[in-house]
Amino acid sequence: MPELVTQLVAGEQRALSRAMTMVERGDPAAACLMREADPHTGRAYTIGITGPPGSGKSTIVDRLTALLRQDGNTVGIIAVDPTSPFTGGAILGDRIRMQRHHLDPGVFIRSVATRGQSGGLSRVVKSLVRLLDAAGKDIILVETVGVGQTELGIMGVGDTILVVLMPESGDAVQTLKAGVMEIADLYLVNKADREGAGQMAAAITSTLQLAAPRLSAPQAEWTPPVLLTRAEAGEGIEELWDRIQEHHQFLKESSRLGRRQEARRKEEFLEAVEEEMGRRWRGRVESDTNLANLLGQVADKRADPYSAAMEFLDSQD
Amino acid sequence: MPELVTQLVAGEQRALSRAMTMVERGDPAAACLMREADPHTGRAYTIGITGPPGSGKSTIVDRLTALLRQDGNTVGIIAVDPTSPFTGGAILGDRIRMQRHHLDPGVFIRSVATRGQSGGLSRVVKSLVRLLDAAGKDIILVETVGVGQTELGIMGVGDTILVVLMPESGDAVQTLKAGVMEIADLYLVNKADREGAGQMAAAITSTLQLAAPRLSAPQAEWTPPVLLTRAEAGEGIEELWDRIQEHHQFLKESSRLGRRQEARRKEEFLEAVEEEMGRRWRGRVESDTNLANLLGQVADKRADPYSAAMEFLDSQD
Repeated sequence: MPELVTQLVAGEQRALSRAMTMVERGDPAAACLMREADPHTGRAYTIGITGPPGSGKSTIVDRLTALLRQDGNTVGIIAVDPTSPFTGGAILGDRIRMQRHHLDPGVFIRSVATRGQSGGLSRVVKSLVRLLDAAGKDIILVETVGVGQTELGIMGVGDTILVVLMPESGDAVQTLKAGVMEIADLYLVNKADREGAGQMAAAITSTLQLAAPRLSAPQAEWTPPVLLTRAEAGEGIEELWDRIQEHHQFLKESSRLGRRQEARRKEEFLEAVEEEMGRRWRGRVESDTNLANLLGQVADKRADPYSAAMEFLDSQD
Repeated sequence: MPELVTQLVAGEQRALSRAMTMVERGDPAAACLMREADPHTGRAYTIGITGPPGSGKSTIVDRLTALLRQDGNTVGIIAVDPTSPFTGGAILGDRIRMQRHHLDPGVFIRSVATRGQSGGLSRVVKSLVRLLDAAGKDIILVETVGVGQTELGIMGVGDTILVVLMPESGDAVQTLKAGVMEIADLYLVNKADREGAGQMAAAITSTLQLAAPRLSAPQAEWTPPVLLTRAEAGEGIEELWDRIQEHHQFLKESSRLGRRQEARRKEEFLEAVEEEMGRRWRGRVESDTNLANLLGQVADKRADPYSAAMEFLDSQD
């Protein structure tokens, strides 16, 4: 273990891969690994990128990565891939575009499938981000398709959060779940050469203005810019990076960066406790005869599920 | 409370509404309500309907409801609406189509927003289904946009589960999460007049054949039909209902219906315990000085979130 952590901190890609696999598989040694890696974290800047399918998130990640590398930054990328219902595997199509970075030792890319995680997806992604941080990556990009509550929760890992939309994605925009507005620091309308891009940007801007009084203070003080990009052609990527840096600066100057990171560590602890508590409880169900009894009563309608659950918990307190 | 339950069981719409609101708000009396209502459940047949946005789920629900009413069935509908990120409210557009049924006392429609639930969405929906059951609805339709893990979990409430797709929904199909194939009893390719409908149906059929050996026994014995529909024009709805009844018959004859319902009650109990355990634990965080201490250590990097969580739980056992 100490050797693995030493190699990880030295930025060795194979050690990083192995460590990530341990976390994904829920290896019992993962807790030890995370503890050893923790003192080496806290330097990376994390950017969360979410949006509906087809909005061009992967292309933006690709272009942004190229720009970050030009500036001499090392980059870690976590792509949360929806698992295909028909193949059972992650949808890797978009990843192909990223291949040019696979050859670059300054870039580390990890795809995480939305299922097959031994632990909760959100907790796993957060641990992977901290491993990239410990391995010395300057900038970490986390990309998800922002459709489910879990996926949006993952975005909480970002210091700066981009929401990528495109013209014509009316339906897709609407099905982006609640909470997007509360978390977005920056909006991109990508594929800006398509009809309706300007109107869409204007609509987002005016909705943001309308909603401003309802939002919490930190967001009221930072007005999320709405950018037009054409990532495929590389247009708007430099401005995007400028705006991300502006946001970073804003967080630092308002001393929110440290507070965000502290809150995130706390939340990660709470999440891990909840997840593990659930896991241990499910494990108990098998062996506890009282519980087996109660489950039998629930199954054959001598007790109803909800009130039996409340009574069971009351009896445990 | 006894009065409310009496009115509910008598099928009074206002009592049903009030009971549902109690469950959604997490009213302390909800446990008592669910206990009193439980003996009156177990008669309804529940159909889960999921699929990507724009595939026409609401139109199918609308047409199927009309057909069910013609046959003299009473119908309960739960529509799980993704909450709009821009308005904060549920997206009610599609619901408008259902309005003609709002005037029919034999139909009860409830929209549930994906957020603002005091409890877990999945547990809330399951409780609402049982209230509709207790209120004597013959058929219960539960509609979700099948994009997140939670939304797919909700489908577990269905005796028969339909997955609605449409031609050209390539991207959307792919982002339907894993687990769809494991739960679907019936596939619809809606908007079947559009190009590619036949090919899509054929692709689903052949994928099902390929996957058959991997699937569990109950599914291997029931080959999910793939239907072509044009819900807007009412085409294919009668065949859909025939196939649902066939599936119902299959479940009954193979004695799977009872077992599914028992398993569901157990799962509902386990979910309720987990959810409430998490809630009580979050409540404790505020008041427990040991925990507050530990959280402080996690926040300022004297302890790392993950291993601290494990150690904390070990110390509780």
